[in-house]
Amino acid sequence: MEEVVDRRGRRGGGGAARRAERTAVRVEFARYIERNIPNLEILNEEALEIIEANAETVLAEIGVNFVENPAALDLWREAGAEVDGERVRIPRGLARKLCATAPHEFTQHARNPARNVVIGGRNLVLAPVYGPPFVRDLNGGRRYATIEDFRNFVKLGQMSKWLHHSGGTVCEPTDVAVNKRHLDMLHAHMTLSDKPFMGSVTEPSRAADSVEMAKILFGDAFVDQNTVMTSLVNINSPLTFDATMMGALEVYARANQACIISPFIVGGAMAPVSVAGTLTQVLAEVLAGVAYSQLIRPGAPVIFGAFVTSIDMNSGAPTFGTPEAAQITLGAGQLARRLGLPYRSAGGFTGSKLPDAQAAYETSNTLNTGLLAGVNFMLHACGWLEGGLVSSYEKFVMDADQLGYLHRLAAGVDVSANGQAMEAIREVGPGGHYLGCDHTQANFKDAFWKTEVLDYKPFETWEEEGARDTYALAHARVRKMLETYQAPDIDPGIAEALADYVARKKAAVPDAFL
Amino acid sequence: MEEVVDRRGRRGGGGAARRAERTAVRVEFARYIERNIPNLEILNEEALEIIEANAETVLAEIGVNFVENPAALDLWREAGAEVDGERVRIPRGLARKLCATAPHEFTQHARNPARNVVIGGRNLVLAPVYGPPFVRDLNGGRRYATIEDFRNFVKLGQMSKWLHHSGGTVCEPTDVAVNKRHLDMLHAHMTLSDKPFMGSVTEPSRAADSVEMAKILFGDAFVDQNTVMTSLVNINSPLTFDATMMGALEVYARANQACIISPFIVGGAMAPVSVAGTLTQVLAEVLAGVAYSQLIRPGAPVIFGAFVTSIDMNSGAPTFGTPEAAQITLGAGQLARRLGLPYRSAGGFTGSKLPDAQAAYETSNTLNTGLLAGVNFMLHACGWLEGGLVSSYEKFVMDADQLGYLHRLAAGVDVSANGQAMEAIREVGPGGHYLGCDHTQANFKDAFWKTEVLDYKPFETWEEEGARDTYALAHARVRKMLETYQAPDIDPGIAEALADYVARKKAAVPDAFL
Repeated sequence: MEEVVDRRGRRGGGGAARRAERTAVRVEFARYIERNIPNLEILNEEALEIIEANAETVLAEIGVNFVENPAALDLWREAGAEVDGERVRIPRGLARKLCATAPHEFTQHARNPARNVVIGGRNLVLAPVYGPPFVRDLNGGRRYATIEDFRNFVKLGQMSKWLHHSGGTVCEPTDVAVNKRHLDMLHAHMTLSDKPFMGSVTEPSRAADSVEMAKILFGDAFVDQNTVMTSLVNINSPLTFDATMMGALEVYARANQACIISPFIVGGAMAPVSVAGTLTQVLAEVLAGVAYSQLIRPGAPVIFGAFVTSIDMNSGAPTFGTPEAAQITLGAGQLARRLGLPYRSAGGFTGSKLPDAQAAYETSNTLNTGLLAGVNFMLHACGWLEGGLVSSYEKFVMDADQLGYLHRLAAGVDVSANGQAMEAIREVGPGGHYLGCDHTQANFKDAFWKTEVLDYKPFETWEEEGARDTYALAHARVRKMLETYQAPDIDPGIAEALADYVARKKAAVPDAFL
Repeated sequence: MEEVVDRRGRRGGGGAARRAERTAVRVEFARYIERNIPNLEILNEEALEIIEANAETVLAEIGVNFVENPAALDLWREAGAEVDGERVRIPRGLARKLCATAPHEFTQHARNPARNVVIGGRNLVLAPVYGPPFVRDLNGGRRYATIEDFRNFVKLGQMSKWLHHSGGTVCEPTDVAVNKRHLDMLHAHMTLSDKPFMGSVTEPSRAADSVEMAKILFGDAFVDQNTVMTSLVNINSPLTFDATMMGALEVYARANQACIISPFIVGGAMAPVSVAGTLTQVLAEVLAGVAYSQLIRPGAPVIFGAFVTSIDMNSGAPTFGTPEAAQITLGAGQLARRLGLPYRSAGGFTGSKLPDAQAAYETSNTLNTGLLAGVNFMLHACGWLEGGLVSSYEKFVMDADQLGYLHRLAAGVDVSANGQAMEAIREVGPGGHYLGCDHTQANFKDAFWKTEVLDYKPFETWEEEGARDTYALAHARVRKMLETYQAPDIDPGIAEALADYVARKKAAVPDAFL
């Protein structure tokens, strides 16, 4: 069973903090999922060995490109790879050997220690949507995202019981200069949430800013000794590592901060149209990327990533919640476990333009797959719409509610004497009913997962209340959550230092929008 | 990979049949699913043994009631059970021993032999919604179902590529007398579809009519020697077997026709609020029911059923797509396999009033669970809405489309040389793209599952076309399917004999509406 405790600011002190605590809305949160059910292993030993051997062939004979990154080429040459221009060919076994220094699991600390997450093992940490330039809500429709939207999504994340992580670019705040928005984004995560968060990766200097701000929040010594950010480093599939992303990886690995090293694959475009072919390329790319992180700093925490979707071969559009993507997600989980690395994949993916039935079918398919694939870190677990172009307010709370389903399913089956319920079966007997029996009375409060969005009312009541669909019900919940949100306590000195840092950095350079 | 072939009437002959074939709309259909991926086993050996031992205790110490059925009590007494009034206590091991004569799998024949299904083993046969008194569509709203609706749903089922079975009461034709509607329903399945179907269970005499009509359709000798119907026999949980349902079971078992023997459980009302307790009761009930079928006729084909939902303890409403129901569905599959019986559970369940996001989340959760639970026969796989009160036209085609996802996921991963795609990875290399490469050209047509309902269009196109949600897109598909439907060929002599039988039986007694 998930551990649910109520929110307590841990670092706040003094009268203001005590007053805040007395008046706070009770916000429950659940600990990350510790699975008590098996993973689904769809590849047999023979298939796994074929894919692993093929990935070594790809690295040894085809190789990968490290673009505009002479220092990386030097590191690879020293490690024993064959470097030809920007092409790096990695002898069989070398990448896997280098990966061995990466930790099997690591703790990402939050400023509220109760929100720390352990990424790896049988755990599943859930984080929200990342990256969309647009937002949508029921009243406002689809529009460019702003920093106000960004802050709203961070608030919704903080309020979401089943969400363990505040995420990163919950939407792109397009009203803030490109070269400054990372400062506002980090400031929002650090002050409006007390859950763990992600750093910037769009420039190495922005990764450095992220580390600096984390040091203000956690203290220099703490950041030197602990992982406080997990950031998203995409591989430019097929088989290409660009300088920007590698620059961010280098900053984070040197600071012992975690990165997800993630092939970004639309099957049929960035990888072969076949599942086994895609898995081969994914594994080759992750081996090279993780090995590189360990060349930068042995022991740096990294995650085996796989962002995978298929393609509609008629229109070229990426498609989500498809069976081929599910097979790749499941297979890549097996490959990650054999490598001994934490695994990132899946999410609440959909290509739909609206939070309608299509969105929910596709999202449930991917959420269920992610749980059974042994995913350890699930980005985009809630709020993703329209192929990642849109962060949806309503879908954020709809999906976040479904994450409770994953928690409960993963908890496994209680076969204690109470779980066996033999006394209840005896008490009720043939033809009776269980509503009033002792066992039901003793257990009903926690017996079943409870939704906070979906409708179970009688038809007539539902009709009288306006015959609302899930979109409308979720809209009401979004409004209620934003109205009742209260910021977690933060040390005023830290808050001031963070605000100063952001102001100073923003004033130092002119705005850039490219 | 699923085998997809185009529709051919097999029994039709003569000029009319040939003309019909020439002008027929091409309707594809898929063979039943033969799984090539593992099941998800959430209970360990210890848990399974506890539940199995407890189920034997329930049968031996608490027992089950066979209500108003002295002949059944006699059979039980002769078999060695202790009979006390209507209570039957079954010594440990006896029920399991009696179950051993039931077949592990059986073929249900369709009038088109290409549509025969093998129920059991690693197969999954998909059948539509069963039982709702209401229908809903986008234009007409929610209303009582009629025989015209019934026929429309049979037509949609016949046209649905991923649906293997025509089902039974796809909706209740409330405009036909209760004592006659089974005749019209069977007539619709037999003439408007050439897929396998279910018989009537609401009275033993109606089960007998079902067998008689099947003999007209298939021939007397064929029905004597083969299973041509699979019918739904619900157990009145907890632990009660009523005379009506048992009467239907007796008719079908004697005729060697298949029955699903299915506890009907809203957890917390008809079973304990705990998963292990519910599984114990489900197993005890199925053991008693299947054993009884084998007392009627050893070797009669039966299915281990489990219709399971949880309850909203605030309102008492049944809830669907919940994690507790998923755990029970998965665990019951393990119990069925250990008994060596085909397994029926899951479906496209939802409590939602509309085919909205809630409907799709809940439906996907249950469809995914059913696939991984090793379900062999899935009733309600498409069209179920509002807790089974409503058959939804649009949700029928939305769900039926998602069934393609199950087919493809279950097919497993191709690791042939073509599946490995090493030549493609070599050809494209770092930084290239796969859209034009030889492997993609050779494989793209069958590489990815294709939806026929969901929207993948660019945002602008979608908006210009009316910004339709899934409900509206599905509505358009329903209309198109019903407009292009063509009845499968049938021997005119058989058609006439069926119509005569129905007319004669209807004329023989006055209408009854209770």
